[in-house]
Amino acid sequence: MAGSTFGERLKMTTFGESHGEAVGVIVEGVTPGVEIDEAYVQVQMDRRRPGQSSVTTPRKEYDKIRIVSGIFEGKTTGTPLCILLNNTDMRPSAYDDIKNLYRPGHADFTYDQKYGFRDYRGSGRASGRETAGRVAAGAVARKLLERRGVSIVAYTKEIDGIRCETFDPDAIERNPVRACDPVAAERMVERVEQLAAEGNSSGGIVECRVSGVLPGLGEPVFDKLDAELAKAMLSIGAIKGIEFGAGFAAATMRGSEHNDEMDANGFVTNHAGGIVGGISTGADIIFRVAVKPTSSISLPQRTVDANGEEREIRTIGRHDPCICPRVVPVIEAMACMVIEDHYKRQAALLDG
Amino acid sequence: MAGSTFGERLKMTTFGESHGEAVGVIVEGVTPGVEIDEAYVQVQMDRRRPGQSSVTTPRKEYDKIRIVSGIFEGKTTGTPLCILLNNTDMRPSAYDDIKNLYRPGHADFTYDQKYGFRDYRGSGRASGRETAGRVAAGAVARKLLERRGVSIVAYTKEIDGIRCETFDPDAIERNPVRACDPVAAERMVERVEQLAAEGNSSGGIVECRVSGVLPGLGEPVFDKLDAELAKAMLSIGAIKGIEFGAGFAAATMRGSEHNDEMDANGFVTNHAGGIVGGISTGADIIFRVAVKPTSSISLPQRTVDANGEEREIRTIGRHDPCICPRVVPVIEAMACMVIEDHYKRQAALLDG
Amino acid sequence: MAGSTFGERLKMTTFGESHGEAVGVIVEGVTPGVEIDEAYVQVQMDRRRPGQSSVTTPRKEYDKIRIVSGIFEGKTTGTPLCILLNNTDMRPSAYDDIKNLYRPGHADFTYDQKYGFRDYRGSGRASGRETAGRVAAGAVARKLLERRGVSIVAYTKEIDGIRCETFDPDAIERNPVRACDPVAAERMVERVEQLAAEGNSSGGIVECRVSGVLPGLGEPVFDKLDAELAKAMLSIGAIKGIEFGAGFAAATMRGSEHNDEMDANGFVTNHAGGIVGGISTGADIIFRVAVKPTSSISLPQRTVDANGEEREIRTIGRHDPCICPRVVPVIEAMACMVIEDHYKRQAALLDG
Amino acid sequence: MAGSTFGERLKMTTFGESHGEAVGVIVEGVTPGVEIDEAYVQVQMDRRRPGQSSVTTPRKEYDKIRIVSGIFEGKTTGTPLCILLNNTDMRPSAYDDIKNLYRPGHADFTYDQKYGFRDYRGSGRASGRETAGRVAAGAVARKLLERRGVSIVAYTKEIDGIRCETFDPDAIERNPVRACDPVAAERMVERVEQLAAEGNSSGGIVECRVSGVLPGLGEPVFDKLDAELAKAMLSIGAIKGIEFGAGFAAATMRGSEHNDEMDANGFVTNHAGGIVGGISTGADIIFRVAVKPTSSISLPQRTVDANGEEREIRTIGRHDPCICPRVVPVIEAMACMVIEDHYKRQAALLDG
Repeated sequence: MAGSTFGERLKMTTFGESHGEAVGVIVEGVTPGVEIDEAYVQVQMDRRRPGQSSVTTPRKEYDKIRIVSGIFEGKTTGTPLCILLNNTDMRPSAYDDIKNLYRPGHADFTYDQKYGFRDYRGSGRASGRETAGRVAAGAVARKLLERRGVSIVAYTKEIDGIRCETFDPDAIERNPVRACDPVAAERMVERVEQLAAEGNSSGGIVECRVSGVLPGLGEPVFDKLDAELAKAMLSIGAIKGIEFGAGFAAATMRGSEHNDEMDANGFVTNHAGGIVGGISTGADIIFRVAVKPTSSISLPQRTVDANGEEREIRTIGRHDPCICPRVVPVIEAMACMVIEDHYKRQAALLDG
Repeated sequence: MAGSTFGERLKMTTFGESHGEAVGVIVEGVTPGVEIDEAYVQVQMDRRRPGQSSVTTPRKEYDKIRIVSGIFEGKTTGTPLCILLNNTDMRPSAYDDIKNLYRPGHADFTYDQKYGFRDYRGSGRASGRETAGRVAAGAVARKLLERRGVSIVAYTKEIDGIRCETFDPDAIERNPVRACDPVAAERMVERVEQLAAEGNSSGGIVECRVSGVLPGLGEPVFDKLDAELAKAMLSIGAIKGIEFGAGFAAATMRGSEHNDEMDANGFVTNHAGGIVGGISTGADIIFRVAVKPTSSISLPQRTVDANGEEREIRTIGRHDPCICPRVVPVIEAMACMVIEDHYKRQAALLDG
Repeated sequence: MAGSTFGERLKMTTFGESHGEAVGVIVEGVTPGVEIDEAYVQVQMDRRRPGQSSVTTPRKEYDKIRIVSGIFEGKTTGTPLCILLNNTDMRPSAYDDIKNLYRPGHADFTYDQKYGFRDYRGSGRASGRETAGRVAAGAVARKLLERRGVSIVAYTKEIDGIRCETFDPDAIERNPVRACDPVAAERMVERVEQLAAEGNSSGGIVECRVSGVLPGLGEPVFDKLDAELAKAMLSIGAIKGIEFGAGFAAATMRGSEHNDEMDANGFVTNHAGGIVGGISTGADIIFRVAVKPTSSISLPQRTVDANGEEREIRTIGRHDPCICPRVVPVIEAMACMVIEDHYKRQAALLDG
Repeated sequence: MAGSTFGERLKMTTFGESHGEAVGVIVEGVTPGVEIDEAYVQVQMDRRRPGQSSVTTPRKEYDKIRIVSGIFEGKTTGTPLCILLNNTDMRPSAYDDIKNLYRPGHADFTYDQKYGFRDYRGSGRASGRETAGRVAAGAVARKLLERRGVSIVAYTKEIDGIRCETFDPDAIERNPVRACDPVAAERMVERVEQLAAEGNSSGGIVECRVSGVLPGLGEPVFDKLDAELAKAMLSIGAIKGIEFGAGFAAATMRGSEHNDEMDANGFVTNHAGGIVGGISTGADIIFRVAVKPTSSISLPQRTVDANGEEREIRTIGRHDPCICPRVVPVIEAMACMVIEDHYKRQAALLDG
């Protein structure tokens, strides 16, 4: 691989820069004969798009997708789906001033180091806009999972130290930060708006829950289900950590506490987060990811330019003061891809 | 892939069950002409083997390796190295009583769900013994990295709530828990011995530090350097979480704090953990993993048998009360494989 | 993989059906900083497009490509190139009559068997139009190979029993069948036109020659250079066989004849076709492929419909009476991808 | 990959040099719960081993295999099988004289070019002995295919211009050249013995027939069933070409002849060799490969040494004057791997 492809039996390849003509994704290995249309995919796109609420960037990208291949008479054909999104709000001149500057927290310096130069317009390939293709592919995987009775939901658990105290699944899509606690959500929104006003940004924690998964999914050793989910999540630019079930709390637990006992009704607890030995137990798969504060802030920061000269920078522009609400659908999309792929791998293993 | 292979240009495939004839590894893609011998690999094996100290299992597995291919006149030939370890301390009868029981925290139930049955002797393929092959492969990668000036060191940071307060690299291999703080190490050893006496076990946190890495390593989008390290680490049975740099602490940080500013000397801080946008910055790569408490404990636990009948179980045997000290070389090995692989991928990208 | 991706370090993924909105290709792993533009790619597209001469289908597809990602200020960025071709000459109604009929020689029956149904418009994904994406990707690889001094040329060697007796490289692009012998070319054109008039079609043989390749390319065992070229060529719909160097003639040769002796100037002969043990010798890589006669003919043929009822069919339409001239650029494109990919793999192997 | 691994869902990795301690193979992705034992695999090993008849090398390698992992209580566990063969007849000193000489037809020169040096003992990794691992893996795949009702048979069709005129499947294993015509077989044996006496060798053609395959196998575009079989076959050192069905004869056929018509009983002819558009039709898959004359001959040949000095060489030793009879089980093994892998891929595609 060369980095832009993900998956084995269900596979996606994303392409495109934030300020080129288009971004998009190719999805391969889709079960043939499945009814899917652009409207179904668009629902997920709209959850990711900028400008959807007071706490997201006001950039206007409607992210209207087109499926240009792989569908015939409303059904998947089993051949690759190409899903395209034109870039509509391109203002490359806006980036002239950062052309030779390394923005703290951004991949400017590392791209220059890797490739010798970079497409500096809107972070080029490193832009969060690349994840639009993932969400489109994830919608296709979600459709396949629905037929299996699997549901995948992510939600904000913590922002800037404000934690959800309750879990109300119905609340998630009803508040702009996608928190699972409507009371905490209000405080989060207030805080994020305040940080935006200050020209600053905040990190957070997002949790994801996969329900209805068959026990037995995941490939032992290197392609463990949690290992592949971890890769999927850390491949999202803003994510700096992941933990399953009890996660880092396991460090202070004893075996007698952490082990999930079983009784006639199945597992009594779920400290493992639904995966043992890299294989699903049938219990809910639960993991949390650490979301870093958005790198683009308008407060002044020290940096250097391409010649190593010290400079001050303020990243003026239209940015998300906290990326949690918009990273939620990306996390779900990646989880959908991983889980559906493993269903297909398991089918291959047992076949014959 | 089918789960037992890891890597792209430097690749390993492990095989073997804990109670079969042998376990081992195939390493492909090794630079030709590199001097390497069994003694060099054995050093790492000895750091992973059981019975090395008072806080590890007293099982006697000397893990004496043999390189049966890929070396000619003391040098790598560029063809696959096969490294074999015979299993010497096999006592399958010891496992008759757990044949139909699902040990809490073990992959017994999930393997049965996945494959329809399982090799119950010493956890079969799910045994930690599988990681011996990884350590052998990692030693080969380490040799290649030495030529590049890269060093990779892991160490115990926390056990059962006892944290290292200092970082003394020279202390690590001088205490049996491989902690980086000799004072904390003493308390950790005491605690682990006490837990062992109680028939219980403890989790912990291990940190890994990669120094001397070239900026520019890592493939954008899905094969980000942190994403691949995350997969590598979560593929180790005992690991339940990973975080890079500030990690989960980023959730409570502001952009103005988390962003690593630059000055004429380079990065002023390293909250990113040496990786930005999935690509190495040249600063130390730093990550921590959550290590769960060893599942095998002799305290009684509730479980079910293969027929779903409720049962009580005590996992009597020779087990590690805390796996941190022995997982350290496994973590290093996986990190070595990932980093060296990415050097080779970068060479391919820039070639021509 | 799921069948639409090819290559390891230089990789392409094609997508699209002949009668959907667009076809195209994603090219990953391209060396950054290489000057390339749409016009350079278009030159190769024009060699493959229909309607270019009296002996190709009169369909009007100008195959005008757009590079929608991966290029910045005229240079490759190292990120995926997406190259799109809109489908302009779509006449799906023309296919209503073959909707339920299996055209002899076409993939109609096999697609139905594989997927349960098919996109019957212009062969859907099985259309030769899919190869347009390959030619676009191959043009990118060709650009990289030019920098290495490697040239790749294919040409028609035989059509319907008429063989080239001479090898005149300058003649190839000057006759509509792309034969390497201008005299044989005239007879071939005459024959193909006659077959077209009769509603029939003809097969042929195309030879490909790769010059300037470094010795040492190719990975031993399964990914031998000839093995990968063989896969690349047989992945082209019309190709039914391949042979390297002496090829099938080796069956009647003795070791004393077939072995290529060496003297101070290198190899005296080249019966091996430039590859020994799967690795390039530095001599020209030479192979020939068998091209089957175009399946679409207007002569009546027996077939069955989707219900198994016997029917007669005449494939009226705009088809190539001999596909050799248009398959030449596809063969070159696939060879370019394979050779450039192996250069990059060799760089990875030796690095460090 | 780095060249020693083959397959996607059913996968093998071979390792070992002809004069190291052992050669072998890892087989991943095997369906769990399948009864298989060493004796079953050994049957195929014995068909490949040297010294089995008057027309094969008199080297004594009994190729006794050991399955050291992946089997429990007589059944596959779904985890990797490691199959080992110790090398018993190692006489490295026999190779001192060719240490610095490039044997014509051998991979000596190309390995030196690729790696900078080589393991010159018995061709090292380029030895035909590597294929022992393939035959072992192929036996595992064959077992899985038996359960599906698929049979795969290869046989010598031509040696040194002597062709089989009849097809008698029962004759194949009853004559030492594994020809399908007992009368031609006698002449072939005579000819091969005569060539051996002269210190020369002969090429030939081997045909392979796969019966009982489900229609619908094979992945469109790059991973066509014939493309993958072609790669598999060309990855065998002695193979220089492959053709499916009518193959190169298609070059002189018209569409009206080559197209396989259908009637109510299915395909009337099988010029396509059982694969159309890269997907199995359900008819027998038939292909032929060109086998080059064994490179090791004792007649004098011109060559150069590592310094470029001209030299004369005679490859005295124990070699096969014609490799056809011993390559037959290797071809079958590779075909078994490809077909079984595609069954599993198809199961993955349709699942859900």
